[in-house]
Amino acid sequence: MTDQIAVVPGDGIGQEVVPVAVDVLDAVGEFEFVHGEAGDATKAETGTALPEETYDLVAESDATIFGAAGETAADVVLPLREAVGSFVNVRPARAYPGVDALRPETDLVFLRENTEGVYSGHEDRLSDDLSTLTRVITTSASERLAEFACEYVDERDLDGFHVAHKANVMRETDGRFRDAVVAVADEHGVETEEVLMDAFATHVCLDPEQFKVVVCPNLAGDVLSDLAAGLVGGLGMLPSANVGPENGLFEPVHGSAPDIAGEGVANPAATLLSAAMLLSHLGYDDEGDRVRAAVEDVLADGPHTPDLGGDATTEDVGDAVLDRV
Amino acid sequence: MTDQIAVVPGDGIGQEVVPVAVDVLDAVGEFEFVHGEAGDATKAETGTALPEETYDLVAESDATIFGAAGETAADVVLPLREAVGSFVNVRPARAYPGVDALRPETDLVFLRENTEGVYSGHEDRLSDDLSTLTRVITTSASERLAEFACEYVDERDLDGFHVAHKANVMRETDGRFRDAVVAVADEHGVETEEVLMDAFATHVCLDPEQFKVVVCPNLAGDVLSDLAAGLVGGLGMLPSANVGPENGLFEPVHGSAPDIAGEGVANPAATLLSAAMLLSHLGYDDEGDRVRAAVEDVLADGPHTPDLGGDATTEDVGDAVLDRV
Ligand SMILES: CC(C)[C@H](C(=O)O)[C@@H](O)C(=O)O
Ligand SMILES: CC(C)[C@H](C(=O)O)[C@@H](O)C(=O)O
Repeated sequence: MTDQIAVVPGDGIGQEVVPVAVDVLDAVGEFEFVHGEAGDATKAETGTALPEETYDLVAESDATIFGAAGETAADVVLPLREAVGSFVNVRPARAYPGVDALRPETDLVFLRENTEGVYSGHEDRLSDDLSTLTRVITTSASERLAEFACEYVDERDLDGFHVAHKANVMRETDGRFRDAVVAVADEHGVETEEVLMDAFATHVCLDPEQFKVVVCPNLAGDVLSDLAAGLVGGLGMLPSANVGPENGLFEPVHGSAPDIAGEGVANPAATLLSAAMLLSHLGYDDEGDRVRAAVEDVLADGPHTPDLGGDATTEDVGDAVLDRV
Repeated sequence: MTDQIAVVPGDGIGQEVVPVAVDVLDAVGEFEFVHGEAGDATKAETGTALPEETYDLVAESDATIFGAAGETAADVVLPLREAVGSFVNVRPARAYPGVDALRPETDLVFLRENTEGVYSGHEDRLSDDLSTLTRVITTSASERLAEFACEYVDERDLDGFHVAHKANVMRETDGRFRDAVVAVADEHGVETEEVLMDAFATHVCLDPEQFKVVVCPNLAGDVLSDLAAGLVGGLGMLPSANVGPENGLFEPVHGSAPDIAGEGVANPAATLLSAAMLLSHLGYDDEGDRVRAAVEDVLADGPHTPDLGGDATTEDVGDAVLDRV
């Protein structure tokens, strides 16, 4: 049966980079593409940033390729991650030959918990002066993430992974997270090394090669993966996969980039690499590898968009990738 | 009246770098030094990592120079910050000529909220599966921090500061933080620019010069300042001041470094720079500047400890600084 892929470009450069990814997906496989609206423009038109139809479309499709949303990003992407029941956000951060990077030796993957932590959404205004947020950590979500991490390192013939946390301060919650993750890894004979999230921030700058796979709570994964983006040449390079039990949502880590939107010069690499993750996730391993290899070739040899020092358009880069897949 | 300075070396390299700082303080001014015990060793001996006498000593002294603690770090430093009623942790991150840095152009200061956020210490185990942490943000603490920030930029003839937060997800709490900080700045005619804490992590790697003063909630300040340490050559370089209404606690951002403790080769720069902040805080501006200049000279010309590629001891560096003040 043909896999159904939901296509949700969103706002800004999402409208420019997602079509390129769809062309490439279309070139390497047979998919049924269904389109969904979301983001600032959708909110302006319909009153809601994420219409129910889009939510349902994403929930029912085998996979979704999402671009970015503007001001409404949190209102779009957080519910969409939930729509696919995503319990892990896979964020590879790797420097590519041909792309200027502060730390060219960086090649690591964050496995970010994707359902709880400070993202649980419980906030209260308790007085004129004081508000609270309830950060939630469960053993079950931490274990599910750890099971995924064990499989992930196993498939890649790695010995283990790092666990980043702040359990010296958040003893009960991050302590629970750490204990649950380490216990699952122990059962599977997978090695773990703990690192405080603040110490990780220093160490990844000084010596990124010591990290291969980093398992972390939701907000830690958010911030530390953006830090890694800074080491590999910017957000334009980072793809991500929001993996759920049945389907997935694939999106570049970057935002809608209003400063360059509409000029047709956005770097489509992160979205194309997200499409490659989508292909692998659906079982099209060869196709995923081909897209990945084609993007790598183009990053190495050009054409390059302005963020990488070139003067190519999004379309030029897309065409070059299409030529190679 | 002679100012009283509490001296709390703590564990590991704290025992090595703090005496060097005391010698330098003693060389430039007349102080009454009183000694306090804290840390892992103290816990092993007395059953508590932070004896009441030490807490009281720090609370009553005009200023404290603290080294580091090991496993018990959180049990020592968090109550000590409270002992001086510290509402802001001032963390300058700057690259020095003579020290290898990933981003030599980095020169910024974090003003980290120092009393609340996830550090409020409210955690609950609600079931076998689930624990919560209550993150607290108050308008009053945010405003006090902002008042300090306004004065800070004013004294340095800067136009304004950045406010880092994650109010797109933590809308009520970080929204309150952001609104309070921006409102105070507006009243004082100080400019503010907002930046999401995750975006900051990318941008500070790509272009650190755009940031001068960054005001942020507690955990954001913890992680982002450690990130900046990675850009300027490591934690060995970062001093900090925990400023309270009446007194202050001055400490290097680094920890007790058990891997090199006892070898006499720890880099005392961060602690010496913390001592310089202590001097300025007590009103000894000339003396503070002299210590700062002496440390800068030694960083530029050597001797250098092994972390900076040299083979000098902590004492060698201390003597070189003493020669110059
Ligand atoms: C837009 C925002 C809600 C989101 C997040 O915090 O997860 C973004 O920063 C990301 O990393 O995908
Ligand atoms: C030891 C720990 C409690 C502390 C903190 O989180 O504030 C440390 O990381 C720091 O930055 O001073």
